[in-house]
Amino acid sequence: MTPFKLSEELIDEIKQLIETGSDKKLKKLFDEYHFADIAEIINEIDTIEAGTYIIKLLDSELTSEVLTELEEDLREGILSNLTAKEIAIEIAELDTDDAADIVAELPKNMLKKVILNIDDREHAQDIVDLLRYDENSAGGLMAKELVKVSADWTVTKCIKEMRAQAENVTRVHSIYVVNEKEELIGRLSLKDLLTTPARANIKEVYIPKVDYVNVHDKPEEVANIMSKYDLEAIPVVDEIGRLVGRITIDDIVDVIKEEAEKDYQLAAGIAQDVDTNDSILEHTKARIPWLFLGLVGGFGAALIMGGFESLLSDHAVLFFFTPLIAAMAGNVGVQSSAIIVQGLAYENIKGSNLSRLIKELLLALLNGTILSIILMVLTWMWKGDLLISLSISISLITVTVTAGIIGTFIPLLLHKRGIDPAIATGPFITTSNDIFGILIYFFIAKTILGI
Amino acid sequence: MTPFKLSEELIDEIKQLIETGSDKKLKKLFDEYHFADIAEIINEIDTIEAGTYIIKLLDSELTSEVLTELEEDLREGILSNLTAKEIAIEIAELDTDDAADIVAELPKNMLKKVILNIDDREHAQDIVDLLRYDENSAGGLMAKELVKVSADWTVTKCIKEMRAQAENVTRVHSIYVVNEKEELIGRLSLKDLLTTPARANIKEVYIPKVDYVNVHDKPEEVANIMSKYDLEAIPVVDEIGRLVGRITIDDIVDVIKEEAEKDYQLAAGIAQDVDTNDSILEHTKARIPWLFLGLVGGFGAALIMGGFESLLSDHAVLFFFTPLIAAMAGNVGVQSSAIIVQGLAYENIKGSNLSRLIKELLLALLNGTILSIILMVLTWMWKGDLLISLSISISLITVTVTAGIIGTFIPLLLHKRGIDPAIATGPFITTSNDIFGILIYFFIAKTILGI
Repeated sequence: MTPFKLSEELIDEIKQLIETGSDKKLKKLFDEYHFADIAEIINEIDTIEAGTYIIKLLDSELTSEVLTELEEDLREGILSNLTAKEIAIEIAELDTDDAADIVAELPKNMLKKVILNIDDREHAQDIVDLLRYDENSAGGLMAKELVKVSADWTVTKCIKEMRAQAENVTRVHSIYVVNEKEELIGRLSLKDLLTTPARANIKEVYIPKVDYVNVHDKPEEVANIMSKYDLEAIPVVDEIGRLVGRITIDDIVDVIKEEAEKDYQLAAGIAQDVDTNDSILEHTKARIPWLFLGLVGGFGAALIMGGFESLLSDHAVLFFFTPLIAAMAGNVGVQSSAIIVQGLAYENIKGSNLSRLIKELLLALLNGTILSIILMVLTWMWKGDLLISLSISISLITVTVTAGIIGTFIPLLLHKRGIDPAIATGPFITTSNDIFGILIYFFIAKTILGI
Repeated sequence: MTPFKLSEELIDEIKQLIETGSDKKLKKLFDEYHFADIAEIINEIDTIEAGTYIIKLLDSELTSEVLTELEEDLREGILSNLTAKEIAIEIAELDTDDAADIVAELPKNMLKKVILNIDDREHAQDIVDLLRYDENSAGGLMAKELVKVSADWTVTKCIKEMRAQAENVTRVHSIYVVNEKEELIGRLSLKDLLTTPARANIKEVYIPKVDYVNVHDKPEEVANIMSKYDLEAIPVVDEIGRLVGRITIDDIVDVIKEEAEKDYQLAAGIAQDVDTNDSILEHTKARIPWLFLGLVGGFGAALIMGGFESLLSDHAVLFFFTPLIAAMAGNVGVQSSAIIVQGLAYENIKGSNLSRLIKELLLALLNGTILSIILMVLTWMWKGDLLISLSISISLITVTVTAGIIGTFIPLLLHKRGIDPAIATGPFITTSNDIFGILIYFFIAKTILGI
């Protein structure tokens, strides 16, 4: 199968077919595509009308999955065009985790009507159960669909029950074993089950070692565990150890991507989660807070320079290097903080925080010294004033070391306080380092030049 | 199972046990742990001696997987302490993809010896096959282990063959169907196979629709396809459509993480892939190129300011705002480029490049105008000189718009040329924007002030 590729021609053709109400042709066209492709098409056309038309036209078996992949605004708009009954039919086709994510977005009274309209009452109950978990937790990620057997069943009973349960489970990843209190006590491989005598008890064959997470664990923790142990699914237990759901790797792939995207955007000075396709207003809201911070930092730097105005007449050249000092302080700080933030995210920081700080200090000292020697030569060649060159170069070393320490210390501190260290990267570190950098610079220059 | 947590006490205990040669106690201790935990312990102790001791002590069934998770330097050191026969025993336990990754790191003559020492000749052949693919391609990621059936087999023969093949496959993800030319023509679900009459032919029941990738596809493309279609495994075909391997989601999770890490580090001005635990020298090598670029940018800015030295006597305040102008140009450029780089990475940029540029231009104009008004008020309050305030503010708008355009244009251009746009983010954009920013600033100021 050649991979699906969006083209302007395809979009135009579909728009045309919708306008002329060529339902048959549309159905035939969409029949070729995967639900993720159809979602991509609707996201690209990007009008609620076209989206509603396509969703109403196609079979709910297909459209339910399409809904899960639509952009939030678009989905909200399309759902507002459907009746509670129509939404319930879509929801009925989805796994409980995706279903819960969608109904959670509905207005309260609509949510209630939709739940009441779901024919399968057990499915409805499962969805309602999931709604009470925080979105940002293992409970918020998990689905209720899983294959669960009791330790004191025989293999025969187990296989019979499993057949019934597996009906609702798209892919059987693992069979989980619980005791009479519904507590997770182990797992079972399909292979073992099939090679064990039919009358044997599950308790004789199950594997008592099983990785699991707690409903309240953070998605990042779940992602770290699943990726470390190469798991394709992990069971979720509640506060007293009862098996309540399972999380599959495809949801975790989304978590890993979102986390990486968020950290990347924060490092680039973008405060909210936006992508290229969001509106200009949303982008302004996401970007201007950090730019404002940069403005404050720059104005602070200007005020400091104003305070040293008396140096201007004799040592104007000092002022020419303020952008360099500020930029280097920012760059070094961002490098240090990025390494720490990434180490914290992937939980692979070795040794104590103190040893970490000392390492970044030595690193900044090494980098600062190399760069200072280069700058010393460059400034001396330009102006031929040794004291000025010395002032600038010694400042650069000092500023580099300070920036490295700040860049290391702040994310470690935030992490210890339970705040996401990623907010410290980018403009925050840059701005504070700008101000510190220029302050240090002028003090050192004043001392060396003996003014 | 409570999750494994590294502690200093545990590391000390293990070091102690190794020193006193308490092999029984060590074996008992490690028996509790997952291979990923044991690898974490060896990585933390971080000496080749301790690593070799543990690898030699434990069973190859366990240690082969431990080897795959070790840091490269450590693994290289440990393997150099093993004989070709010992390495071959470890390799024999691994899936072909992991095995190929490890032997590829060996010195050429050792590689040959290890391959010759693998008892299972078919396994050895598969590993050699994989060695010829570029590491940075689907071929370099895939494993040879898969369940493959022929279209003209009966269901009975198919089940029998599958049993034999499945022995070597840890998890059966999908059954792939090939024709007499070994070309991939479809897939089969386990469910369908079990509910079909035994004498039926596979060609009557298989699903002719199957997602696949080509051996030469880039890992990022594979990751995008698998994550878009929520696949847990995908078959790989060669240039003429023959089924040659399969890629599983756990390898793709690693690709996604590495890609995100690389982009993040590039944005933060770190040129090579390093983590917190790498040496100071490695960090210097990774960080100093960008810092040097920053130094050149800063020196360039200083030269420009030197060229406008005549303005100093009457308009010194202009010089105080150079760090602000440079910083804002850098920040806006980084924001724009980050959004574009991310959009390109996840292939979710809508519309043409031109519309993208116009959007970023409008966005920069909006942000620039808001910030300029704030700066206008601040500078006027500080100095009370309307023309100076106007010069600085108009410069800020102009610089913001220019920076937004450069930040959008450069990554799009690099991408079009087949170069990873992520290298454009961070210091590269910052540095060029610093210089452009200050140049624009002084020209506008000169014009407005009529000097």
